Amino acid sequence: MAIPTRLHFPRAQWRRAAACTLLGALALLPGAHAATASAAPPDAAASDPGALGWMQGFPPPEAKRIRYTDSDYFAFPKLRWTACHFRQLMPTVGVSRGPGAAAPLPQRLDAAIDALPFTPLNTRTRMTWAQSLQANYTDGIIVLHDGVVVYERYAGCLQPDGQHGAMSVTKSITGLLGEMLVAEGVLDENDTVGAIIPELARSAFGDATVRQVLEMTTALRYSEDYADPNAEVWQYAAAGSTLPPAPGYSGPRSYYDYLQTVQKQGRHGEAFGYKTINTDTLGWIIARRTGKPVSTLLSERIWTRLGAEQDAYYTVDSSGTPFAGGGFNAGLRDMARLGQLLLQDGRSNGEQVVPAAAIARIRAGGDRRAFAKAGYPLLPGWSYRGMWWVSHNAHGTYMARGVHGQALYIDPAAKVVIARFGSHPVAGNSANDPTTLPAFDALARYLMAQPTR
Amino acid sequence: MAIPTRLHFPRAQWRRAAACTLLGALALLPGAHAATASAAPPDAAASDPGALGWMQGFPPPEAKRIRYTDSDYFAFPKLRWTACHFRQLMPTVGVSRGPGAAAPLPQRLDAAIDALPFTPLNTRTRMTWAQSLQANYTDGIIVLHDGVVVYERYAGCLQPDGQHGAMSVTKSITGLLGEMLVAEGVLDENDTVGAIIPELARSAFGDATVRQVLEMTTALRYSEDYADPNAEVWQYAAAGSTLPPAPGYSGPRSYYDYLQTVQKQGRHGEAFGYKTINTDTLGWIIARRTGKPVSTLLSERIWTRLGAEQDAYYTVDSSGTPFAGGGFNAGLRDMARLGQLLLQDGRSNGEQVVPAAAIARIRAGGDRRAFAKAGYPLLPGWSYRGMWWVSHNAHGTYMARGVHGQALYIDPAAKVVIARFGSHPVAGNSANDPTTLPAFDALARYLMAQPTR
Repeated sequence: MAIPTRLHFPRAQWRRAAACTLLGALALLPGAHAATASAAPPDAAASDPGALGWMQGFPPPEAKRIRYTDSDYFAFPKLRWTACHFRQLMPTVGVSRGPGAAAPLPQRLDAAIDALPFTPLNTRTRMTWAQSLQANYTDGIIVLHDGVVVYERYAGCLQPDGQHGAMSVTKSITGLLGEMLVAEGVLDENDTVGAIIPELARSAFGDATVRQVLEMTTALRYSEDYADPNAEVWQYAAAGSTLPPAPGYSGPRSYYDYLQTVQKQGRHGEAFGYKTINTDTLGWIIARRTGKPVSTLLSERIWTRLGAEQDAYYTVDSSGTPFAGGGFNAGLRDMARLGQLLLQDGRSNGEQVVPAAAIARIRAGGDRRAFAKAGYPLLPGWSYRGMWWVSHNAHGTYMARGVHGQALYIDPAAKVVIARFGSHPVAGNSANDPTTLPAFDALARYLMAQPTR
Repeated sequence: MAIPTRLHFPRAQWRRAAACTLLGALALLPGAHAATASAAPPDAAASDPGALGWMQGFPPPEAKRIRYTDSDYFAFPKLRWTACHFRQLMPTVGVSRGPGAAAPLPQRLDAAIDALPFTPLNTRTRMTWAQSLQANYTDGIIVLHDGVVVYERYAGCLQPDGQHGAMSVTKSITGLLGEMLVAEGVLDENDTVGAIIPELARSAFGDATVRQVLEMTTALRYSEDYADPNAEVWQYAAAGSTLPPAPGYSGPRSYYDYLQTVQKQGRHGEAFGYKTINTDTLGWIIARRTGKPVSTLLSERIWTRLGAEQDAYYTVDSSGTPFAGGGFNAGLRDMARLGQLLLQDGRSNGEQVVPAAAIARIRAGGDRRAFAKAGYPLLPGWSYRGMWWVSHNAHGTYMARGVHGQALYIDPAAKVVIARFGSHPVAGNSANDPTTLPAFDALARYLMAQPTR
C-alpha cells in the first residue's frame, strides 16, 4: 500500500507487480508497484479464473495448476484464483464461529444501484457503479444500508459460501482487537513494547509505545519496496515462509524471530509509516498479554458473537503464528457483519461485543500531520488509528484496506457498510482508489437520500 | 494397517514407526511397523503434548517447534501434537457444515463405565475401560447409546472443539460416498475403472470394477511396507507432497498422476489387499462422475445435513485434490454423529441423508475368503466392504479404522456408536487392537443390558 506519485491507474504496473511476488509468503504482504509503462493487463472478464481454467478438472491439466512453490502463484493472473484459495496452498489456523446458527442478513436489493454514476478521480469521464466493479477486478461486493443488504455481487473466484484473502484488512482486525484490549484496560497504550515483550527490548520496537504501534508511527529501518532486492521485506518473507529454507539460510524462521532483528531509524511518534511488521508486533503483544493467538482471541471475542455464517482462518508461519499483518481469510458476508458491528458501535445481535470506546477511538482518527508526511495524494487529510484508515470527511467514514482491492468501508452518517474483495492486477490500492473511493462515496450519498429501509 | 505376525503389542515398534515417516505426505498413509524389540516408548502421560510443551508459547522455543519440513513431524512423540494440527502444517480444503446450528447431542453420562473390566486379547490380565484409554494413547473418545452420549473424554492434543486427523477412517467416508452413489445409480459397481476414467485404462485399475475397488480386491503391484525403501508407497508420498520436489525429480506430481502409473500384479477379485491407492482411485471416480471433489460432495450430501458442530477438512496434494485415502480431519463429536447416521440406516434429524441400501450393503460385508487371504489374525472372520471393516459377529458390528488408533465403531444390535481419536506410538492398529476390540465389545454388551435411555 505504498503510494506512487502517479495518480491515474498505471497501465502496466501489473507486470512489475507480478515480478514482485517471487517469494511465497511475500504475496501476503502489502504489495508495492512501479510506475513504468507497458501494455495493459487483460481485463476482469479476460482474466476470469474460471474462464482461464485454473485448477479446474480432476485433475487440473499441468499447465493449469497453481502451486505454492510457483514463483507467480500470487501474481496476476494466477492471483485471480489464489485470492480465494489460500488454504489450499499453505498452512492455516481456523477462526471458529462456534456451533450456533448464522444470524440472518435481511435483504432488500436496490436494482438502481448498478446504474449509479460517479466520476473517477483525476478524470472527467463518468462511470457507473456496475462499470467500476469490472474496472476493479471485483471478486465480491456487498453493501449494507442500516443493516439491510441492498447490493451483493460475486465474480471471479468468489461465491457467497467461499472465502477470500483479506490481505491488509487483516491489520484492521488486529487493530480492533488491540483497541478492544486498550479500552478494557488489558493493554496500556503508554506501555513500551519492550516492557511487554522483553525479547523486543533491544529491537526498534523496544522503546515504542503500544499506541505508536497501533498508529504505525514507529521509526523502523524497514522497507517494503518490492522493487528493491535488498529491501527488508524480503527477509521478512523468508522468515515467515513455511517452505524449506534455502540451502545455507541461517536467518530468522518465524515472524516473531524476525521482529527481534528490526533496527530503529529516526524517532518514534513523528511520522506515519505503513509497515506490516507493526501489526505483527501488535499481534505478538496481544498474544503475550492474553495468552492467546489472535486467531483464538478473534474467535472467542468476535467471530462467535457476530452471527457469522462461516469460520474464517489465518495463514500461519512455521512456528504456528497467525499472520496478524495480512493472513486473514473470510467469507464476504461475514466481513459485512464485521463492518456492521463497527457501525453499531460494537453491538451485535443485542450484545455489546466490542467496547464502544474502542470503536470511538478508531473513529476519532490518528495524527493527521504524521499521516500527511507519508505522502498519500489520494487520501488527503486522512489519518491512521487502531490500524484503520480514517477519512475525516463529513460522514466520519473510515476504512480497512488491503492490496489488490480488499476493502471494508464504514460510513456512519449514511449508515452504510461496504465490504469488497478483489484481485486487481496491481497490488497497491492507488491503482483502484480512483474508481473505488468516489464510487463508494456516491453510493453512500445515494443511500442516505433513500427512505429508511 | 498391514498386520504383523506378532499378536501382542510389540514394545518398540514405535521406534521403527518413527523412522517410517520420513516423508511429509507419508505420515497420512496407513503406517506399517516392524516387530523388532527395544525399549518401550513413554506412556500416554509422559508423552502428553502439553506436558512436553510442543508448539506452546509466543513463539514456541525453537526446540519445541514442529514443522512440516521436519522428518519426524508425525513420528512419536511429535505426532501426539500433530494429530490435532494438520492444517497448521500443510494445505487443506474445507468441508463446510453450512450456516445452520449444530444438532444437540443429548447426554446422560454413565459413571460406571470407567471401571468396566475386560480382558485384552492374548493376555490373562484384566484391565478396566479407563486403563485402556491410557494404554491406547487416546486423544478423545465418545460413546453413544441409542443416540445419547453416555461417555466422553478428551486428552492429549484434543478438546471438544478441536479437530483430529482421522487417518484411514477417511477411507470409510470415501467408501460411504461411493456406496451412496452406487445405491443411487450414479455409479455402476460393475463398470470398469477404465471406462469411467480413461486416464487409468492402461494402469492396473483399468480392468478392475468399481466393486473391486470398493472392496480392495484389486491386484496391484504396490507395497505399503514402510520398512522397504523401494516400496511404491514412497513414490506415492513424493507424488502427493506439496513441498518442493527434490532436485532432478521428474516423477508424478499429484495423487492422480501417480495412480496412472500403477501396474497390475495378479488377478483382480481374488484377495483383499489393503492399499490406500484404491481409495484415492475411488475418490477420482467420484469426482469424475459427480463433477465434485469428495470434500464438496461430503459437505453437500452429508456434513450440512448431519447437524455437525464443526466444519471438517481434508489435506490436499499440490493439484488441490483432497486426500481421499487418509486426509480427513474433524471434531470427535461430529464423528459420533456420522456413526449415528449409519446406525440409523442413513437417517439423520428426520431426513434420509444416505440411502438405507448403501448402509445395508456395507453391513452385509464383503468376501470373507478374500479377506482371510490377507492374514489379519486379530480380525478372524472379518471382511471389508465399501471400505469398512465388517466383523460378522452376532451384533453385526462394523468399523472404520485408521493408523495410530483412529476408530469409528458401530454395533447395530447394541445401538452403540464409539468414535475414538488417538496418537498411539505404533501406526498399525494391531498394536492397539488387543486393548481396543475387547473393550469396545465389553462396553457394547454392558450398554445393551442397560435400560433404554
